[in-house]
Amino acid sequence: MLSASGESADTRDFPLEQWYCAAFTSELEDKPLSRTICNRQIVLYRMASRQVAALTDRCPHRKAPLSHGAVIGDNIECPFHGMLFSPTGTCLDIPSQDQIPRTAHIRSFPVEERHGHIWIWMGAQAPDASLIPDMHWLTDPALTAVHGMMEIRCHYLAALDNLLDDSHLSFVHRNSIGTPKIVKAQIDVQGGDDWVGFTRWTLDTPPSALHAKAGGFTTNVDRWFNVHFTRPSTVLIDVGSAPVGSGAPQGDRSRGIGLYSNGTVTPGTANTCLYFWHTARNFNLGDEAFSEVLRGQMETTFIEDKDIVEAVQRNRERDAENLPDLNLAGDVVGLRARRIIAGLIERERPVHASPVA
Amino acid sequence: MLSASGESADTRDFPLEQWYCAAFTSELEDKPLSRTICNRQIVLYRMASRQVAALTDRCPHRKAPLSHGAVIGDNIECPFHGMLFSPTGTCLDIPSQDQIPRTAHIRSFPVEERHGHIWIWMGAQAPDASLIPDMHWLTDPALTAVHGMMEIRCHYLAALDNLLDDSHLSFVHRNSIGTPKIVKAQIDVQGGDDWVGFTRWTLDTPPSALHAKAGGFTTNVDRWFNVHFTRPSTVLIDVGSAPVGSGAPQGDRSRGIGLYSNGTVTPGTANTCLYFWHTARNFNLGDEAFSEVLRGQMETTFIEDKDIVEAVQRNRERDAENLPDLNLAGDVVGLRARRIIAGLIERERPVHASPVA
Amino acid sequence: MLSASGESADTRDFPLEQWYCAAFTSELEDKPLSRTICNRQIVLYRMASRQVAALTDRCPHRKAPLSHGAVIGDNIECPFHGMLFSPTGTCLDIPSQDQIPRTAHIRSFPVEERHGHIWIWMGAQAPDASLIPDMHWLTDPALTAVHGMMEIRCHYLAALDNLLDDSHLSFVHRNSIGTPKIVKAQIDVQGGDDWVGFTRWTLDTPPSALHAKAGGFTTNVDRWFNVHFTRPSTVLIDVGSAPVGSGAPQGDRSRGIGLYSNGTVTPGTANTCLYFWHTARNFNLGDEAFSEVLRGQMETTFIEDKDIVEAVQRNRERDAENLPDLNLAGDVVGLRARRIIAGLIERERPVHASPVA
Repeated sequence: MLSASGESADTRDFPLEQWYCAAFTSELEDKPLSRTICNRQIVLYRMASRQVAALTDRCPHRKAPLSHGAVIGDNIECPFHGMLFSPTGTCLDIPSQDQIPRTAHIRSFPVEERHGHIWIWMGAQAPDASLIPDMHWLTDPALTAVHGMMEIRCHYLAALDNLLDDSHLSFVHRNSIGTPKIVKAQIDVQGGDDWVGFTRWTLDTPPSALHAKAGGFTTNVDRWFNVHFTRPSTVLIDVGSAPVGSGAPQGDRSRGIGLYSNGTVTPGTANTCLYFWHTARNFNLGDEAFSEVLRGQMETTFIEDKDIVEAVQRNRERDAENLPDLNLAGDVVGLRARRIIAGLIERERPVHASPVA
Repeated sequence: MLSASGESADTRDFPLEQWYCAAFTSELEDKPLSRTICNRQIVLYRMASRQVAALTDRCPHRKAPLSHGAVIGDNIECPFHGMLFSPTGTCLDIPSQDQIPRTAHIRSFPVEERHGHIWIWMGAQAPDASLIPDMHWLTDPALTAVHGMMEIRCHYLAALDNLLDDSHLSFVHRNSIGTPKIVKAQIDVQGGDDWVGFTRWTLDTPPSALHAKAGGFTTNVDRWFNVHFTRPSTVLIDVGSAPVGSGAPQGDRSRGIGLYSNGTVTPGTANTCLYFWHTARNFNLGDEAFSEVLRGQMETTFIEDKDIVEAVQRNRERDAENLPDLNLAGDVVGLRARRIIAGLIERERPVHASPVA
Repeated sequence: MLSASGESADTRDFPLEQWYCAAFTSELEDKPLSRTICNRQIVLYRMASRQVAALTDRCPHRKAPLSHGAVIGDNIECPFHGMLFSPTGTCLDIPSQDQIPRTAHIRSFPVEERHGHIWIWMGAQAPDASLIPDMHWLTDPALTAVHGMMEIRCHYLAALDNLLDDSHLSFVHRNSIGTPKIVKAQIDVQGGDDWVGFTRWTLDTPPSALHAKAGGFTTNVDRWFNVHFTRPSTVLIDVGSAPVGSGAPQGDRSRGIGLYSNGTVTPGTANTCLYFWHTARNFNLGDEAFSEVLRGQMETTFIEDKDIVEAVQRNRERDAENLPDLNLAGDVVGLRARRIIAGLIERERPVHASPVA
């Protein structure tokens, strides 16, 4: 039995009954946008109402990419022979004939646009909007945010591992955000059936240069680092500093400064994914020059990540031995996230699966 | 049982006992030319007599491409170790030894050069020169012709479909030769066992800008559009206009102007083909400046075709669902041509094929 | 049963229990160097002692290429999470944890550096240093040498064939070192279980331009051309001229001039190899300008070889017929070398191999 994706749940390594980020709001203007998501070709476009439609990016006639076509009102026209499709995938017009066969239909995908992200539901079941990650801070007027997107030529789980692993900072980011030698991981891991996270507090230490300048700190600070994975592939990161004694470890951050970041990874093909990142801050609000500096720092850092995970991908593709990976203590959070994802895929298997291979 | 191509007739999607266009006369001068035709590597060269020879482009010794070698009189020399082959594929000299083994032989292919095209026979049976498409107009001194060639990265049947389909003109050629919205296809389709064609007459309408200028028309015209597919993969197109009442629908074109075009598609690999086009006209004869304008217009148009069929090819290669195509009324001629081709392949199957799969 | 390479001896076309050239001494300075050898990814680096270490270029944790990492003393650090490996492949440090699991280990390869070449032993058995080809002349102070390396996109046996074949000179090297038509091969072939070679003497002929100038010859010379293949894939070439009557055919080269060359080919992937060449001379010693001219001539010649063997490789990859090669008299030495190599592979098969296919 095959799932809605055409692959069986046995061979897929992504759950389908989930929301994935398809694009940033800022990426989708008047032109249709083509994206490969969960090994499916998708065209996204804005209707006259500015709502977003998502369809299979393949005309049922001769498989032309609709994303090369024109948006006409709420509909999209095939660039090859002009077949016109509604946002639900219904064919409305076939210029060369009067009859529209019932099979002249393509799949549409539920879409939700929230907090600057366009989310797509890849499953066959009814979408559950409550599963969309809460990123309200990204559009919070009390915060100022920067964001960016990269296509990474690696498996999406490898990109996700990287987001959940802070043991690579001293090496991959040696010349950007890393410190010479990270402390052995003293992290407090928590989690449940469909999430996992960790917290690290660094108490009574000098502030980082960025935090000292942003917060005007002249004394030691308590620093927090909270990382939260939420299914299927989003990581929320809450970092900040506050003066020692101001009560931050007890929950009072009022005298501190903070950054609220997220990274969400969307499976593409077996060796590509999309990486969307976003960082909001509660200091230097509205300071465009500072935003540019911060955006540049983030991009430099993520390009370091991209370089290493793509080198790993190439190395794996050339690997004729293919031995199993050796897991380390620093992988604990990433491995729990992978188990959560594996569980989601498992739940998508048919209950009465045939016992015959 | 395998055919002469090494593929079985069950898996091939091109007939072999046919003539295919290998090159234009103008493409083959003193240097050998390498072409992939029906998944076979072919070298073409001109003998001292200027006749064309066609051989497997692979020395039997170490498989070097003869097309990198030198033509010496009627023969061609391997660039690697100097083995010399005659136009029939017989080895005439092996510089490093005295004896020439009987197996030092490569396959030669029958070639006919007619009307500016070099035709190659890919089958194992005796070639039938009467099957070569008649394109006498291309070298008719009463006409002036332009021509061009493109390698297209798509399956040859997709390129052929495109030639036989005029329902894409309003979309693919929106900015070149297309009109805003084509009329529902009012075409008269005719055909037989090994050909199919259609005719469209547009009566009593204003002339197109090109036709008006070329024919000096100041009144409405009757326009004709005759398309004729001939096996295995050539399309002849006869278009023109004449003043209303001059008798063109009844067969008298003497007061009109006409263009005689052809497109012939040669299978390359599974995802490449060669497209040869030619257009002769009976007006502005010998006007080189006009020829250049017309050639440019044709090339612009064909690049639009190439862009869309290559986008379709890429989309198909990425398509994990691979649903069957939905056929439309506008595909009627292309589908009949595909059935004729399928019939040609079927006829090449051995009569007493084994019943075992 | 699989060999140390992971491929079975039935499918491998290179022996493993052998030394292969991994790099020139001059290629390996402070930075690690990545090479694909016998389908294995290898990182080479110099320890503090300047000795060379060779390891699998893949961290056991997440398969990152160690060649992107830093050399620290005798050890190499993974660029991803800082795992530190000794020259024997033992993990010495995992920054994010205290314990080092016993499986945190990668394969190291024996290395010997001799006469400007870095040799690697790809087998599982104890390396036998006596098998390293003797190239003492390359660092002989009485000689002056030039050298170079090329990655060739062809199967390594095809590159080796080319080194052992002088019947291609008149064709591939028509414009460089070839003469218009080579004499039918009058060569004296000798060989044994693990070597093959041939000798050609050209007696009492005018000297070549290079030899005449280098040796100051004003009369006819006797010329020698000795080619010696030694397992697994090195060819030693000894060429020179001496005045007629000076006793060279009898063994007295004292009045002649000579060049001592070698080419060694290292298997990479199924369609790539590394080619290392070296030429020492006993004339114009220390003449840097002459060395540059000679190096340039050699490179021009080898690029001609590279062009043809890569064209052959591409032609083979496109060949749907795949008929067996036709062997010629000029292939005798190359074929004996291939049989020696096949014998080496055969000997690596398990003695009690299962009789079941």
